[in-house]
Amino acid sequence: MAQSEATPDGAILWAGRSWRLRVRRLTQPDGSQVEKGYIEHPGAVVLVPYQDDGAVLMLRQYRATLGQSILELPAGTRGWQEEWLACAQRELREETGFRAATLAPLGDVWAAPGYSDEVMRFYLATGLQADPLPADADEDITLAPLPLADLLAMARDGRLQDAKSIAGILRAAAHLGL
Amino acid sequence: MAQSEATPDGAILWAGRSWRLRVRRLTQPDGSQVEKGYIEHPGAVVLVPYQDDGAVLMLRQYRATLGQSILELPAGTRGWQEEWLACAQRELREETGFRAATLAPLGDVWAAPGYSDEVMRFYLATGLQADPLPADADEDITLAPLPLADLLAMARDGRLQDAKSIAGILRAAAHLGL
Repeated sequence: MAQSEATPDGAILWAGRSWRLRVRRLTQPDGSQVEKGYIEHPGAVVLVPYQDDGAVLMLRQYRATLGQSILELPAGTRGWQEEWLACAQRELREETGFRAATLAPLGDVWAAPGYSDEVMRFYLATGLQADPLPADADEDITLAPLPLADLLAMARDGRLQDAKSIAGILRAAAHLGL
Repeated sequence: MAQSEATPDGAILWAGRSWRLRVRRLTQPDGSQVEKGYIEHPGAVVLVPYQDDGAVLMLRQYRATLGQSILELPAGTRGWQEEWLACAQRELREETGFRAATLAPLGDVWAAPGYSDEVMRFYLATGLQADPLPADADEDITLAPLPLADLLAMARDGRLQDAKSIAGILRAAAHLGL
């Protein structure tokens, strides 16, 4: 099927603190026009904070979108001009209260390519030392350390239900030879 | 950190063919107000079409959001009132040209809980028989069958970069005892 032609970028319909909605008018192969919206996103970091005892510092975080608290890896949206590593260290300190001596890259993953250009960049965070930053005012977070081996089992059998966390746990386990 | 109070739902700022943008005005613990946008989404199906020879029918699909073609599992947005299994069979036929004799549930995953309420529902599709439906006019898709064992290795080492596909391959491998 021939690909639709797009006007580059499209118009910004709404801009929030961290991302914006753009809407493109596309001409389809049959000549008809259709509006397609997508999220223009600066990208996000996802952290796998791994302790010497084999535990990962997971979070229980309230998600207003879902109306419930979910189990997930620490993560956060990058500022449009922010350096990736600076963003990773900042989010780690805000959400877990620790800084990492080492942030090893675990690659990139697309979050939702159907309607968002968000790239998530994964890091294995080790050498953890207490060094908290104040959390965002609108975040409701509790630390939930769990063994990496248990989390891998939960990713496989469906108990871990957050897409970025499944990807991060799998990548960390592979990196660590698990 | 106390959780922000939300007006329920918020106003619809834009509605496309398959999802809409809602914006809520939140009162933060310090009394300040902030606008938060999120995507109200009907949910999506993600399919792992598994052949008797051990291959998964992956797609190479052009994604306008990313400006490139990516390797991913067949998937598609549900109609607001559509039955999940009907949606799964429809998307499978549209995107791969096959129908499945069996669609075994592999659980649910949240796509991007920071800004979308989308739930992705995963199915292992087996007993595949040719029974195509016309593809969507704006889709640019090529079939790319690959062995499940290879895809699992690619999910682990970073060559597979699409979040839903990483989750689906891992769940399918676990389900099949791989």
